Amino acid sequence: MKNVVIAGTNDVSNEIAKSIANSLSADICNPIYKTFPDGESYIRIPCEINGKRAIVVQSLVYPQDKSIIETILLGDAIKELKAEDQILVSPYLAYARQDRVFLEGEPISIRSILNIFKEYYNMLFTIEIHKEESLKYFGKPSINIRPYIYMAEKIGFDKRNIAVLSPDIGAIDRAKSLSSYLNCEYDYFVKSRDRVTGEITMQPKELDVKGKDIIIIDDIISTGGTILKASQILRSQGARKIYVMVSHAILLNNAEEKLISSGIDKIYAANTLPKKDKVHYIDVGPFIASNLTAYLN
Amino acid sequence: MKNVVIAGTNDVSNEIAKSIANSLSADICNPIYKTFPDGESYIRIPCEINGKRAIVVQSLVYPQDKSIIETILLGDAIKELKAEDQILVSPYLAYARQDRVFLEGEPISIRSILNIFKEYYNMLFTIEIHKEESLKYFGKPSINIRPYIYMAEKIGFDKRNIAVLSPDIGAIDRAKSLSSYLNCEYDYFVKSRDRVTGEITMQPKELDVKGKDIIIIDDIISTGGTILKASQILRSQGARKIYVMVSHAILLNNAEEKLISSGIDKIYAANTLPKKDKVHYIDVGPFIASNLTAYLN
Repeated sequence: MKNVVIAGTNDVSNEIAKSIANSLSADICNPIYKTFPDGESYIRIPCEINGKRAIVVQSLVYPQDKSIIETILLGDAIKELKAEDQILVSPYLAYARQDRVFLEGEPISIRSILNIFKEYYNMLFTIEIHKEESLKYFGKPSINIRPYIYMAEKIGFDKRNIAVLSPDIGAIDRAKSLSSYLNCEYDYFVKSRDRVTGEITMQPKELDVKGKDIIIIDDIISTGGTILKASQILRSQGARKIYVMVSHAILLNNAEEKLISSGIDKIYAANTLPKKDKVHYIDVGPFIASNLTAYLN
Repeated sequence: MKNVVIAGTNDVSNEIAKSIANSLSADICNPIYKTFPDGESYIRIPCEINGKRAIVVQSLVYPQDKSIIETILLGDAIKELKAEDQILVSPYLAYARQDRVFLEGEPISIRSILNIFKEYYNMLFTIEIHKEESLKYFGKPSINIRPYIYMAEKIGFDKRNIAVLSPDIGAIDRAKSLSSYLNCEYDYFVKSRDRVTGEITMQPKELDVKGKDIIIIDDIISTGGTILKASQILRSQGARKIYVMVSHAILLNNAEEKLISSGIDKIYAANTLPKKDKVHYIDVGPFIASNLTAYLN
């Protein structure tokens, strides 16, 4: 089946779409996007789709709800154009953190979103969803792509004196997996609360970081509060270089400035969200493409 | 079954929800709405819904995509709370004008939206959707409420010397139906283009408007361009009072100012969209409630 890669609304999706199309040697289709004066979104796909596999690349960036509706409108238009297969690549899935009812009366937002997408797409590829179990709500085949080893390869860390740390025990698998590629130690941070001051401190469970280069690995970085605390303790314990490596760099309120000035040497992120200065992005398009090749056909 | 009316996100939906709840003597539930720092919507329903019929009132006002996603999140939360029945009242349905493929490659946007809603709601009530046939995309029972006679009753027009005009022949049914209530003449505007200047002029097909009060009736008023032209010709032909009556007053760029200063005496609209000065709103909540009573149970 012939593939055609359809670029989503935003710059992020555009860049990844181009990269995927290149890697697959597939045609790329750039839909027409506009907003009507009353605020409604308009899309049109001016490409030959009939009988092809349409691969829509749409990262659900801010404004997320608009990105979601556009994903659905693209799905509707592709169906109308009689695509043979409809695949969604959504490098960043919004609403993934509302993955259960924390307080009675809440929705499971990620369920709602994936439930909608399944009406229009036969398979879903995403980069590191917050909880992999959430993908069950899509109800069709889906692939959660973990980009860390691919990213590490592209970054080319000096492996001689390095170690990997995850911010908590829950995310230890990420650290473990990356460490096995780097052939190095790994550990996680334990948090404790001072009984008198109430202050939360954190430190590596067992790892001696002195003189080592440390990679703090996480799926998403939002306010950066935890990473900030982690980097301070690493610095005080004599770590040499401190790197942060995440899939999704949201970095609210220029959190990256605070992180860099607190002594973090480099922040590495996949290119799933809008770009920030001071963050080093790794284009995960080719890696998504190789996953598409592996799972499709 | 006990009804509970759930107020949507925006002021418009809130007002209509209250009005419906009053008319039905039903409980009203005000969900908690907030926006996370990254822009995602959060909702929570802090009410007892178990075993009840949940009637969600959500007008799809700007930003429409956010309104749509919140409608879905509400549907998910209500399901989670084990409502016995889930009804959607959406006084203004966004995307209703993209109801067919005008240019190849376009989606049928209203199909996408209604297709999503059917996952969460068993029945849909709306006020005057652009094309009634579009409701088929909901695929479940749906009611298109025409509010004009109800509105006319509330307005209390002087019936002695009045006539109704629709902007074009396609919408003649609206004028006919209102005129039968007012027991008066009705007609529609014909448009013609001057072969030399290219200017479009419009005038009533046959009706002599001289000395008469005229109601121009339409489903939606957006830029107000057509209504403006219509009112100018009516004025020049000696109409006495000119009224405009619509379901949905979008009125982009303060179009209402232009209309009033062009000589329109009053603009009447249902309260399905955010309020503008100089527009007289008729609360259609009680009329929606009587439709709910008629069709439910």
